[in-house]
Amino acid sequence: METLKAICSRTSCRAFTDQPVETEKLEKVVAAGSLAAIGRRQFENVFLTVIRDRALLDELEAATREMRGNPEMKAFYGAPVLVSVAIKGDDFLGKENCACVVENMLIAATDLGLGNIYLHSPCALFEKQPELFKKLGAPEGFVPGAFMALGYAAKETEVRELACRLPARWI
Amino acid sequence: METLKAICSRTSCRAFTDQPVETEKLEKVVAAGSLAAIGRRQFENVFLTVIRDRALLDELEAATREMRGNPEMKAFYGAPVLVSVAIKGDDFLGKENCACVVENMLIAATDLGLGNIYLHSPCALFEKQPELFKKLGAPEGFVPGAFMALGYAAKETEVRELACRLPARWI
Repeated sequence: METLKAICSRTSCRAFTDQPVETEKLEKVVAAGSLAAIGRRQFENVFLTVIRDRALLDELEAATREMRGNPEMKAFYGAPVLVSVAIKGDDFLGKENCACVVENMLIAATDLGLGNIYLHSPCALFEKQPELFKKLGAPEGFVPGAFMALGYAAKETEVRELACRLPARWI
Repeated sequence: METLKAICSRTSCRAFTDQPVETEKLEKVVAAGSLAAIGRRQFENVFLTVIRDRALLDELEAATREMRGNPEMKAFYGAPVLVSVAIKGDDFLGKENCACVVENMLIAATDLGLGNIYLHSPCALFEKQPELFKKLGAPEGFVPGAFMALGYAAKETEVRELACRLPARWI
């Protein structure tokens, strides 16, 4: 897909089908994320975890429902893949780095026909339950940064117009 | 350009020519940035300033050289355009939002054949000199978030391989 079309088509998907994501596509999405702008090229300060294991996803979903006090909640919108971007806790550019990685993954996923959504909310779960965060395998001293849920969208999404939707000033 | 090729071609440009950027291309880059993932769709918490005015760029470059104590320094690598992404100071997702906007702009700029670089360093200048930050026109309560320098690259850049360069674990 053309780059600007992918950017215009990216939208937060909040309903996924059960269809699994092909490993080849997932590898491309993760690789695209890793090619994002990383401050001072400190690649070792970012750690990715790709979670497809159904048992772990079920555990994370159940823990989220319990934390939110909502037994009906569909955590991660039922996506079959969750990607965690953890960051070194003392990197002052950590938040920016993880956001760039996720944004690149969202665009690449859109390009590959996959539904996707940027999630910040799982940070609260992992911060409250360090034993769950440990399961993601990030090195000591890392903290949750951002997440992406990924899968096939239950509904088709529209292509937005390439027009500025933010307040802007030209000088 | 195909999306994944643009992602693989994005690289930090540190030498720009004097060639001005066409307004039409610049508008597309800025629009692409505005279509990035913004937390809770609070678009009013992000403010863009597109700076092409040579007098203001000269003033910012001179102030940067003075702050760094380096009279030879080519601030913003001589780029003819600087885009500022300011964020509402009390938005806890502000840093992530501005990074997503800049990453989208970098990818779109690459797609359109423009050299580009993500800059965090101008934040220090604007934080130390609030009267300069005021010139960017962001509303009261906003702070510097991130910047992109943009123009035509002095050298051609290579297309990287679509392979993961970050530490990653698959579960």
